Amino acid sequence: MKLNCCLIGKGNVGTCLLELIEEKKPTLKNMGIDLVVIAIFEFDGALINHNGLNISKIIEIGDNFRNLEEWNENLSALDSIPNLNLDICIETTPTNPKTGEPAISHILKAIENHIDVVASNKGPFYLHYRKIDNLARQNNCFVKYEATVASCVPAISIKESLLANEIISIKAILNGTSNYILSRMSSEGVDFSLALKEAQELGYAESDPSLDIEGYDAAGKIVILSNALLDWNMNINDVEINGISKITPQAIELAKSDGFVIKHLAIAKNNKLIVKPRMIDKDSPLNIGGTLNVIEFKTKHAGPIILMGRGAGGYEAASAILNDIISIHKIRSRR
Amino acid sequence: MKLNCCLIGKGNVGTCLLELIEEKKPTLKNMGIDLVVIAIFEFDGALINHNGLNISKIIEIGDNFRNLEEWNENLSALDSIPNLNLDICIETTPTNPKTGEPAISHILKAIENHIDVVASNKGPFYLHYRKIDNLARQNNCFVKYEATVASCVPAISIKESLLANEIISIKAILNGTSNYILSRMSSEGVDFSLALKEAQELGYAESDPSLDIEGYDAAGKIVILSNALLDWNMNINDVEINGISKITPQAIELAKSDGFVIKHLAIAKNNKLIVKPRMIDKDSPLNIGGTLNVIEFKTKHAGPIILMGRGAGGYEAASAILNDIISIHKIRSRR
Repeated sequence: MKLNCCLIGKGNVGTCLLELIEEKKPTLKNMGIDLVVIAIFEFDGALINHNGLNISKIIEIGDNFRNLEEWNENLSALDSIPNLNLDICIETTPTNPKTGEPAISHILKAIENHIDVVASNKGPFYLHYRKIDNLARQNNCFVKYEATVASCVPAISIKESLLANEIISIKAILNGTSNYILSRMSSEGVDFSLALKEAQELGYAESDPSLDIEGYDAAGKIVILSNALLDWNMNINDVEINGISKITPQAIELAKSDGFVIKHLAIAKNNKLIVKPRMIDKDSPLNIGGTLNVIEFKTKHAGPIILMGRGAGGYEAASAILNDIISIHKIRSRR
Repeated sequence: MKLNCCLIGKGNVGTCLLELIEEKKPTLKNMGIDLVVIAIFEFDGALINHNGLNISKIIEIGDNFRNLEEWNENLSALDSIPNLNLDICIETTPTNPKTGEPAISHILKAIENHIDVVASNKGPFYLHYRKIDNLARQNNCFVKYEATVASCVPAISIKESLLANEIISIKAILNGTSNYILSRMSSEGVDFSLALKEAQELGYAESDPSLDIEGYDAAGKIVILSNALLDWNMNINDVEINGISKITPQAIELAKSDGFVIKHLAIAKNNKLIVKPRMIDKDSPLNIGGTLNVIEFKTKHAGPIILMGRGAGGYEAASAILNDIISIHKIRSRR
């Protein structure tokens, strides 16, 4: 089955996705998927070829893609989406965390035109989930966004495997940066600012790390999980958020002496969303080190089920996006 | 959609499943599933009602179900399967680990009659996977067996969410009994026989614990995972198996002094299957205590993805079975 796709955003995730699509061509073909990328949008124009862009050439040419003859200066995604005969719109632009733009407009435009969506942007989903979901239902579209939470870890699609278990609450570590900082403070006894500096030097933290360490990033992700898995109707303003910048080495030491560690937890429980530093037993499965992410689903019939893995990375997110594409194909091709 | 089911085996798992089906009726109805149990088979006869058995009454009456008027003495599953107008055959009988009987005959008979199968028995799948799989493909049947490995933990169905990641190897702790024994030896310094006795007193180990501690149980499960997730073609005779009964407190202490723990790992890697005690880093996510199960999928594009939870229990297995039923319904109802 031919799947006409457009990619919006040719940043790290978008570029990794193109490479993954190229590498996986034989696998996709075995699954009956002929994935054709007909448009790649950037903020200042687009590569367009209605018969399919030459992906290997675009990968090869790297940042010089604007020199290709398929380049259309100033052509925008919003204007083009309705006219491209698209099956799937892949959204990977950087998001404004306050407005969800430009991703939210792209996503809604695609759904309005009965195009399925796969997105790696959190913003639209922690700000406007219900709006997206309602419109998608009305227009019989699939909107998948596995990459928005814990990248490659199937934190959202695992729902399909737990329908009979009934998830009743979620407890998670969803921000690798703050987990790295707390892990270093715990293992090395260094203070917060030193651990943050180290994380920045290693590239784990942004030069403005506030979204991570103040808990805003994790808050967005727990909103997404609670809406998707618990069928809540939340947005990021509903989360009680506390950061980790005030945690002292003394507090960590004190916890340790009682057999506990301090972790930056995101919790969805009893219709409330919380992101805050919490003490957990040192033997808890949630006590993971480094930049890993972990999600504990407490289920009614089967106790806790726990999922962990890398929470970030270009190929990691790209693999989640491609999984979403495959799952849409599987459902569509059965109809 | 009406789903006519039969349940073969009314033991702990079968009974928990009946309770779960009864409890989940509203949820199932919301999904469009009208799950009708028209037959329950035991070794000496069957309860049959072509319009659907009264499940709440059967739950209430408990072990006295043979007194019900629907009871047919000596009616066998094998003879009845072809004549019952079944959509799904649920197999939960205890398995002979050497032959896979009686489960394997039930499963094949169902598939021959174009009936989908959900099973909680390992035996048929670690002995005759390819035979079952081939026949199911020929007859366009679904055979689901999530409950066979780590009960409620979606170790098999997670494949659907990792198709683009490409699983390349699996490392797991799949036997709660041997993990409990090793955990106690490690935390309390007791020797193997004492830890085993404790596990038996707590009901974690059978009076004949050899299948667990010698690694045969874990071997069966890693065979199933390797066939299902890595598309191998293995059976239990292909596994190099070593048990834990020769592990001494001294060995555990020695490992500990170097920052390691000894765990009974099941490994599928480089086309080889191994079950044996191995040293792992004490900070490894695989270092879980108690009777939990853990499975690490090493993926090509996203590093390790780890899944953990309870590996056994009646409701846990029942929830996995019901998930399998729901997933079959979802696919069938789309056609």
